[in-house]
Amino acid sequence: MNLEEQIIQIARKAKEASRKMAKVDTKTKNDVLFKVAELIEENREKIKEENKKDLRTGEEKGLSKALLDRLELNDKRLNQMIDGLKQVASLPDPVGEITKTWRRPNGLIVSKMRIPLGVIGIIYESRPNVTIDAAALTFKSGNAVILRGGSEAINSNRILGAIFQEGIRAYGLPEEAVQVIPVTDREAIKFMLQQDEYIDLIIPRGGEGLIRFVSEHSRIPVLKHYKGVCHVYVDNEADLEMAVKIAYNAKVQRPAVCNAMETLLVHREIAEKFLPEIYKLYREAGVEIRGCETTRRIIPEAKPATEEDYYAEFLDLILAVKVVDNIDEAIEHIEKYGSSHTEAIVTTNYEKAGKFLREVNSSTVLVNASTRWSDGYELGLGAEIGINTTRLHAYGPMGLEALTVEKFVILGNGQIRE
Amino acid sequence: MNLEEQIIQIARKAKEASRKMAKVDTKTKNDVLFKVAELIEENREKIKEENKKDLRTGEEKGLSKALLDRLELNDKRLNQMIDGLKQVASLPDPVGEITKTWRRPNGLIVSKMRIPLGVIGIIYESRPNVTIDAAALTFKSGNAVILRGGSEAINSNRILGAIFQEGIRAYGLPEEAVQVIPVTDREAIKFMLQQDEYIDLIIPRGGEGLIRFVSEHSRIPVLKHYKGVCHVYVDNEADLEMAVKIAYNAKVQRPAVCNAMETLLVHREIAEKFLPEIYKLYREAGVEIRGCETTRRIIPEAKPATEEDYYAEFLDLILAVKVVDNIDEAIEHIEKYGSSHTEAIVTTNYEKAGKFLREVNSSTVLVNASTRWSDGYELGLGAEIGINTTRLHAYGPMGLEALTVEKFVILGNGQIRE
Repeated sequence: MNLEEQIIQIARKAKEASRKMAKVDTKTKNDVLFKVAELIEENREKIKEENKKDLRTGEEKGLSKALLDRLELNDKRLNQMIDGLKQVASLPDPVGEITKTWRRPNGLIVSKMRIPLGVIGIIYESRPNVTIDAAALTFKSGNAVILRGGSEAINSNRILGAIFQEGIRAYGLPEEAVQVIPVTDREAIKFMLQQDEYIDLIIPRGGEGLIRFVSEHSRIPVLKHYKGVCHVYVDNEADLEMAVKIAYNAKVQRPAVCNAMETLLVHREIAEKFLPEIYKLYREAGVEIRGCETTRRIIPEAKPATEEDYYAEFLDLILAVKVVDNIDEAIEHIEKYGSSHTEAIVTTNYEKAGKFLREVNSSTVLVNASTRWSDGYELGLGAEIGINTTRLHAYGPMGLEALTVEKFVILGNGQIRE
Repeated sequence: MNLEEQIIQIARKAKEASRKMAKVDTKTKNDVLFKVAELIEENREKIKEENKKDLRTGEEKGLSKALLDRLELNDKRLNQMIDGLKQVASLPDPVGEITKTWRRPNGLIVSKMRIPLGVIGIIYESRPNVTIDAAALTFKSGNAVILRGGSEAINSNRILGAIFQEGIRAYGLPEEAVQVIPVTDREAIKFMLQQDEYIDLIIPRGGEGLIRFVSEHSRIPVLKHYKGVCHVYVDNEADLEMAVKIAYNAKVQRPAVCNAMETLLVHREIAEKFLPEIYKLYREAGVEIRGCETTRRIIPEAKPATEEDYYAEFLDLILAVKVVDNIDEAIEHIEKYGSSHTEAIVTTNYEKAGKFLREVNSSTVLVNASTRWSDGYELGLGAEIGINTTRLHAYGPMGLEALTVEKFVILGNGQIRE
């Protein structure tokens, strides 16, 4: 069997499994998740051994320390996986939920009922914990999943996939509900992206290169977990103390994540007062400022910001700053340079808060809170499979419900159309 | 400017227009719709003249009578367009609707708010009325639309697009919110399908060939309005009189539409009684039966059904019939041969009704009612842009709400993450 046939077979089996999974009751699905948690506990040493193979190959290939760190599965991370599985088991099952019911004049009772999407392909880089996290969420929501992790993590992903399948088999369900693509050839991704007959949705998680590659080659709808060029706009009517807290938190608390702020927009009237104050804290934290002319007049240490800096997702202690004339200029800037991820306004003005919420159409928009809240777990979705920056299906953080779709269910008593 | 540049410019202008459209209030949008209705009234003769050009070309090219009929814009059809515009104006505006609100333990108030999708590309065949219907729905929901109709209807589509733009300009809104691709080259579709930077969603409406072409070439997510291989399953515990009414209505009332029944499944225990009775009516209506062996034993006039017949969307007075042993066999048949469109069960048994509703994951599932009800207008959505058979975003009949997506809107009072 050549590679293409192998991928087609994986996809076809996933489709078959998804039909069975759609009918499985919640208790059995939860039992499997607890069983997988148990199996990870029992197989700690084996998992770490396989992971060491990946780490050794990574070292030989000269992966950066940061990448090697992301790749490592230590006891702490295995504990997180185990906790994650139990937590997903504790979440309500979205499948079968009736979200709405209405009655038509002819007596038909029309409802919308959640069902699984079907087969989901997830293409991700490096972190092997995604293998278990994504499998748990897709499994709980009655889907089948095809996981394609980074080649650096192939041994780790393979054993985690095998352990998940062992848990599935223990309850007599189809193990093809969770499949890890067992080869590292990039061609495998291309073949996977062509199986629109069997795969219903592709979620890529990774850098711009991966996401572009997937969008270009996919015949299957793609929901992009794209970059986060997030903004905080500090209005002239902001509570200054609050603005300092939020602008500091959004940049410094965890700069390497997608919901960290990358560009700070400041109303001209408040810039002279606000910028020196926040800069004291930023300097202590080691934040490099790249600013517009006005910013550089107020903060002489700031470097000049280029056009590219305003488009950039730094994922680091670097911040672009721009002083704007008013809220309209702030919104225009966000529309032009933003990535539809997350934006916040700090203001005490009711009208302006409302305007920002209505007119900024990023996936998450906040008033007087840090961009760092844009996260499925923090927003109460229980967990998160990614943050969708494609304006389709489920925009923003995607929890279990985002892995379902609603069908129309209609109760009649003999109605026909005339 | 070559064709590719022309399409890119159309797409870029649509994106700009969509940003403005997202902020337009409901009253202004409705005023435009009423204005367009007025302009169609005033321009009846001009529209019919342009349409005659298309009809003449169609005749010269030897289009079938059925296709020429679909292409024609007579006074009745213009009246329907005018009524359609007024009806869409009367529908509630989904934009800005808060669908859900909850409070987090930290005091954040999280809501989901509907916003337009952005730019929608609609690719359709023949019927020029789609130009106005689709433009009205996308406009009302705050989107920009790029319309690519069939080459046979190019003159009709161009004048209808120009009239819609005149209505938009009358209220100072960007006319690029509704654009008709003014050329007939098939290459134009390919270029359009590559503008994933500007276009958010593609909806193809047409035959299998068109839909396959679009899926293969699109970098933009596609929601398919695919074929309807709809089933009615008559259970052994059905009310026979009701089953006859429904099976007759689903096939005969309007056989050429996608929600008409194509395959009838009958429980073995009831077949001897039910089939002769329904066949009396079918014969009168001129329905050709293609049946399994058991069917042909009961209805000697039936032709033998091939494997292809069970996959077929006849759109005609032809019906495939299969006798099955039980509800499980019926569900398996639907899963294998169906197109995820619409299926109905006729039964008086509560358990079996529930099982069918839960386990059949087509976009619309009915108990004791005709498949012909699967229609946005009939289900209370007000209107319909198509029936989505792709399990993503909005499965089934798509109304105005299906042309929006929900963003997260968060009210805080200084919350930061620790």
